[in-house]
Amino acid sequence: MLFVLSILAILPLAVLLSRATESVAAKTGDAVGGLLNSTLGNLTELIIAIAALKAGEYTLVKASIAGAIVTNTLFMLGASFLLGGLKHHIQNYNQAGARLQAGLLFLATIALLIPSTAAARGLPNSAEYARALSVVLSVLLLVTYALGLVFSLKTHREVFASAAEEEEGAWPIGFALGVLAVVTLFVALVSEVFVGSVQQAARTFGMGEAFIGFIVVALVGGAAEMATAFAAARKNHLDLSVGIALGSAAQIALFVAPVLVLLSYVVGPKPMDLSFWPGEVAMVLFATLTASFIANSGRSAWFIGVLALMVYMTFATALYLLPDTN
Amino acid sequence: MLFVLSILAILPLAVLLSRATESVAAKTGDAVGGLLNSTLGNLTELIIAIAALKAGEYTLVKASIAGAIVTNTLFMLGASFLLGGLKHHIQNYNQAGARLQAGLLFLATIALLIPSTAAARGLPNSAEYARALSVVLSVLLLVTYALGLVFSLKTHREVFASAAEEEEGAWPIGFALGVLAVVTLFVALVSEVFVGSVQQAARTFGMGEAFIGFIVVALVGGAAEMATAFAAARKNHLDLSVGIALGSAAQIALFVAPVLVLLSYVVGPKPMDLSFWPGEVAMVLFATLTASFIANSGRSAWFIGVLALMVYMTFATALYLLPDTN
Amino acid sequence: MLFVLSILAILPLAVLLSRATESVAAKTGDAVGGLLNSTLGNLTELIIAIAALKAGEYTLVKASIAGAIVTNTLFMLGASFLLGGLKHHIQNYNQAGARLQAGLLFLATIALLIPSTAAARGLPNSAEYARALSVVLSVLLLVTYALGLVFSLKTHREVFASAAEEEEGAWPIGFALGVLAVVTLFVALVSEVFVGSVQQAARTFGMGEAFIGFIVVALVGGAAEMATAFAAARKNHLDLSVGIALGSAAQIALFVAPVLVLLSYVVGPKPMDLSFWPGEVAMVLFATLTASFIANSGRSAWFIGVLALMVYMTFATALYLLPDTN
Repeated sequence: MLFVLSILAILPLAVLLSRATESVAAKTGDAVGGLLNSTLGNLTELIIAIAALKAGEYTLVKASIAGAIVTNTLFMLGASFLLGGLKHHIQNYNQAGARLQAGLLFLATIALLIPSTAAARGLPNSAEYARALSVVLSVLLLVTYALGLVFSLKTHREVFASAAEEEEGAWPIGFALGVLAVVTLFVALVSEVFVGSVQQAARTFGMGEAFIGFIVVALVGGAAEMATAFAAARKNHLDLSVGIALGSAAQIALFVAPVLVLLSYVVGPKPMDLSFWPGEVAMVLFATLTASFIANSGRSAWFIGVLALMVYMTFATALYLLPDTN
Repeated sequence: MLFVLSILAILPLAVLLSRATESVAAKTGDAVGGLLNSTLGNLTELIIAIAALKAGEYTLVKASIAGAIVTNTLFMLGASFLLGGLKHHIQNYNQAGARLQAGLLFLATIALLIPSTAAARGLPNSAEYARALSVVLSVLLLVTYALGLVFSLKTHREVFASAAEEEEGAWPIGFALGVLAVVTLFVALVSEVFVGSVQQAARTFGMGEAFIGFIVVALVGGAAEMATAFAAARKNHLDLSVGIALGSAAQIALFVAPVLVLLSYVVGPKPMDLSFWPGEVAMVLFATLTASFIANSGRSAWFIGVLALMVYMTFATALYLLPDTN
Repeated sequence: MLFVLSILAILPLAVLLSRATESVAAKTGDAVGGLLNSTLGNLTELIIAIAALKAGEYTLVKASIAGAIVTNTLFMLGASFLLGGLKHHIQNYNQAGARLQAGLLFLATIALLIPSTAAARGLPNSAEYARALSVVLSVLLLVTYALGLVFSLKTHREVFASAAEEEEGAWPIGFALGVLAVVTLFVALVSEVFVGSVQQAARTFGMGEAFIGFIVVALVGGAAEMATAFAAARKNHLDLSVGIALGSAAQIALFVAPVLVLLSYVVGPKPMDLSFWPGEVAMVLFATLTASFIANSGRSAWFIGVLALMVYMTFATALYLLPDTN
């Protein structure tokens, strides 16, 4: 069975990836380390999504975007808090970083909300309207993301610095970067096989389309990132975990999604817009509110993780039980 | 008139209850004291609700659940802040406790939202879907509530400790617990009569069903708890007030409501689900957002209470003026 | 062209206004200075709105109310943060003031939401219901606003005091107040001409009704206030900027809007209610959530301003591209 083989292949790769990311983070700070990790992770998703884009499977693309945002915000963050909190009584993390990412996600949620509600209201020419709107909003999101990087990595770098001590046994930075690049390539290849095999496996277990696209693919596609985030949380390195989880969600919302919208004009059979299924938008909205609520305190304990995971399980249950309309 | 008699009976009982709760809280801390008080208070509501469940009056049961959440979150909390703030310039309370309860309420709101919107959207088999979903969500809520108790009373007890000084003239703990138990029994009996007589009185004054179920019953049913919360606020014991108000709301949302859903399979004529009238869900959502907003600061003054009360009066006005469709 | 003339006339007036406000604020504190500035600014809007009320143009009145709230909360606040942040690395401001105004805005948003959703749901007698509800809610909002002034200017004045040092070269208070009064009169006159000419100019450029009413009129009508807020932000006087921006938004929501509703019974051809177009309500809601999110920290840097401005541009784009149904 391909499914078991993929897991066996992805596990050692995830360990290597986690080790390399932490070595880079030890040199560059958690902000850059987290960014690097999520960028490499999302590169995979971008490549897979472009393939789906070419095939015109827009519903699948949108489900995987929304699913990745919700899974990173609730599951990856929640499980990091829970796993870290089971080992450490109270963990502190840099509030500024979490708040920045939550703010970016909030903006992106509004940008998804407008075309989606406009489409649902059945305005005259609503398809045309949603398409024109999506292009402008995509540009706004990309500009905001770029400015956010300038802000957190350049002009106000010191605000986002974590109190991370130099890790012992860190690899030299050049070697770590090389490992990161090579391993990411392998993860991308394995992930594609993995996602494909999981989708088939899920279907044979009688799971609906919505559950597979939103939950299963997102969980499996982010497996390597999650391994890194969880390991960091266990080592009381919560800044790195938060950076990967929320940073990855924000990157998908403000970079991957707009790039796909703009690319759809070049490679797709017809333009893609940002109008999502209302249930998807609602889940993204509540995931973002949960993240804002959590990010405000800068302190974590195991139960905060349980709360985020429970919100995630609420969504997963609703999708799992959803009567399949196909 | 039964109405006047009930008030005359409930007042001295409320004073006794308040005194006994504070004596227990002085020994055990405000977290346990508040929990005990709201558990005993909600026990009454649970018993009344089970009677309504047997009779299959699900609309009434749901209105009383939502009404109790909104009334405790906005009215009891707001009036405590106002009454305490009129006597003390600025009052401090333990932020961690308020944030935990607000987080629990937030999760519960999401769990109410999903079946309710699903029912409103008219999916195929939506009744069946809402019912299956409600059972799973009820179990998730109960598990979360239990874990929340472990968190606040066991693993992270010190985070929720209030700076309460030993009260003078506190009763011995055994005597206080005995008084609590006996008085609660009387309150339950009187409340049932009270609620019945109030409903009749309200109808003769031309109040609509929605207003009676949501506002009048909730206010009257929580009278004894409120007396305790207000007295504590006047004594600058705001942690106890917040513990009773938000703790009671969270208990109804995460314990009473799910228990009623599960019990409906045993005692009810048909299963009850968690899908509420959209207006009820919206009020619970905004009450929770208000509580989150307020709970963030850990400081209170009289105007914060006014704000919460005004949100409550907005809801009460909307329900009072609602054209009765019966 | 009247348009250019109006700008030439409004610019020196704005400079005088800004200077006079700061002189007053230097004596009375930023809370009173900001209140004075926004009251004089909103007086203009009130006068223009009463004229529209007499003509029965309720859609225009409502669009200008919602537009002014959103523009002040997102554009004026965001641009102040951006302009201040480009000069100063990190700026601090009094959290208590921002939180109070955000809380008032939150209450007002709920008060707009209820009649609007009731109208959208098509209840029996919904028009009558919305009208009765709007009158009671207007009274509640006015009472809350008055109590908020008592709270921030009287009972808890010290909480809202900013750390503003005495400005050099401040005008004597009597002279400054006189300048304020006279200049406001001129601004009101010029604004009316300005708004009229801009509406025509906008229409000839092919802008839709919604965009003109919501964005153009609000930006132009608030030009003088904005000049003051921006100048204060550049001088690291962020308390005054926040006081003008959020204070003005809260004043429109809790004072101007309810007064117009009540006045419509006296001067209007028929009563006006508080039910808005769903898109307007959604924008006000998200503007308020953004303000709450921002106000929580009490610290600002340029990117916070970018985020608020981007939310504003998202709304502006959605309105600009909206297919005109007239």
